Amino acid sequence: MAVYTEVADEDLARFVAAYDIGRVLACKGIAEGVENSNFLLHTEKGFYILTLYEKRVDPGDLPFFLGLMEHLAQGGVTCPLPVRNRTGAALGTLAGRPAAIITFLDGVWVRRPTAEHCGAVGAALARFHLAGADFALTRRNALTVDAWRPLYERSKPKADTVFAGLAGEIERELDALEAAWPTDLPRGVIHADLFPDNVFFLEDRLSGLIDFYFACNDFLAYDLAVCLNSWCFETDGSFNLTKGRAMLNGYLGLRALSDAECAALPLLCRGSALRFLLTRLYDWLNVPPGALVRPKDPLEYLRKLRFHRTVADPSGYGLDS
Amino acid sequence: MAVYTEVADEDLARFVAAYDIGRVLACKGIAEGVENSNFLLHTEKGFYILTLYEKRVDPGDLPFFLGLMEHLAQGGVTCPLPVRNRTGAALGTLAGRPAAIITFLDGVWVRRPTAEHCGAVGAALARFHLAGADFALTRRNALTVDAWRPLYERSKPKADTVFAGLAGEIERELDALEAAWPTDLPRGVIHADLFPDNVFFLEDRLSGLIDFYFACNDFLAYDLAVCLNSWCFETDGSFNLTKGRAMLNGYLGLRALSDAECAALPLLCRGSALRFLLTRLYDWLNVPPGALVRPKDPLEYLRKLRFHRTVADPSGYGLDS
Repeated sequence: MAVYTEVADEDLARFVAAYDIGRVLACKGIAEGVENSNFLLHTEKGFYILTLYEKRVDPGDLPFFLGLMEHLAQGGVTCPLPVRNRTGAALGTLAGRPAAIITFLDGVWVRRPTAEHCGAVGAALARFHLAGADFALTRRNALTVDAWRPLYERSKPKADTVFAGLAGEIERELDALEAAWPTDLPRGVIHADLFPDNVFFLEDRLSGLIDFYFACNDFLAYDLAVCLNSWCFETDGSFNLTKGRAMLNGYLGLRALSDAECAALPLLCRGSALRFLLTRLYDWLNVPPGALVRPKDPLEYLRKLRFHRTVADPSGYGLDS
Repeated sequence: MAVYTEVADEDLARFVAAYDIGRVLACKGIAEGVENSNFLLHTEKGFYILTLYEKRVDPGDLPFFLGLMEHLAQGGVTCPLPVRNRTGAALGTLAGRPAAIITFLDGVWVRRPTAEHCGAVGAALARFHLAGADFALTRRNALTVDAWRPLYERSKPKADTVFAGLAGEIERELDALEAAWPTDLPRGVIHADLFPDNVFFLEDRLSGLIDFYFACNDFLAYDLAVCLNSWCFETDGSFNLTKGRAMLNGYLGLRALSDAECAALPLLCRGSALRFLLTRLYDWLNVPPGALVRPKDPLEYLRKLRFHRTVADPSGYGLDS
């Protein structure tokens, strides 16, 4: 949850006046999104999300993110849409930060996903990959294999204060993943962060995807690994094979996986688990003063990582051979 | 800002099903209110605020708060209204906490109040006092003069770590206020916390009052003292006499102040400043682990308290004699 920036009412009125959405009726900081400040904005035309992009987001990436939302929506993926102002711009400046007004997407994220939810997410991810195939802009994945060691180095001195032996275990994993990371799997635009809080449902029907601020170009199957990690484990740390199978089958119903993609799945899952372990570890050790954010437990992803090391082949995730 | 409690989507659906407001379409934690967890709730019937009452609120007080909102609205004070469920109850239970659904009130709180805003607030406060006069329920003020010393005692051991000499200054103030506190001023229902973030405006027109969770029975003029403290000081700590005069005249336009109320104003302002100094001091020294709340600066109210000690008579606040 996050509201990092206060917006003065008169600055907001001036910002909104550039859009064709009427006067501001209400604006409330909302407790969603970790990277940015988000507000629920009510104007005479309806309800919107106002996002202020904070320093963790590179302003140069914003045309990619906002353009991707428009592109995906045209391709049939339900997601929020940037509202363009009277000059046609989707991006403006408010309180000294890049800012955008986004349509309000109904739906609720599920706290306890079922296999049915996982199946729907698998299908939505495939739809995302297919719709993203002809998106013109590209963005490299700033959090893929070559970024993990530098990220780890910033947490290394204090890593063992979080969990004894953590530094050594991460280093061994980095060595293994850097040596074995694939280079030639099918690539495209991936969401890269499709956790349960980024998928909305209305009465068990998937109603849309949100939060495209980690989207980038990378292996499509890596996106599936992110979802297996974030949807298919139980709170006790066990992997739920039924959920994994539902997710994979949901995906396969729309997009086939190559043999190489299937074979790489355990490794991609390890990599994805390490990526979230490392960013959570960094955040855990560096809670910014005044941040209204509760850091997430990095060790959840250490446990997931350890599970993936025990998976010999993709049937371990429920992939039918 | 506060969201202390997570609400599972299926629990929410069950809770909302008891109301005649359609299915849940969206629910987002909002960064407003310090005492409770607040969510923006979108249903098929519209937008609402869902409030979960956390442990700082006594459940026995909730009928007073919710009933007061209904009573004030009937008396012409614009404020949110509790929505009653199909059994007629305004109060239910969600995630193990007392919970209520409240109508969504449009408006934006002003970060930099002008004298015009202060005048509107003075008038709204008087309207609140008049409308509350025939409210049947009562609630004693849990944060008035007799509560200040016990509250101080809980912060006393660490008070001087916040500001050298703070303990002694508070004790001298307690001695003075306990000795001189009035006993026979006009009483009634007061808001007791009408800070700028609890008053909404739409284009400089006051659109409503919110957050009645400190409302109680006490001296009406004490409420004015709370507002003088929270609206009429500049960020540099100086008192703005133009704003004070506007607020008092706004109030006097609807309700006259007796000579005793006028004479007591400097003392009531000192008391109100001490009350916020003490609660902020306590919060400052006791940030709960995991609370997503930034404590407010207690010393802001020490500076205000010192100002009030220099005010000889109510003309110091802009009251025309």
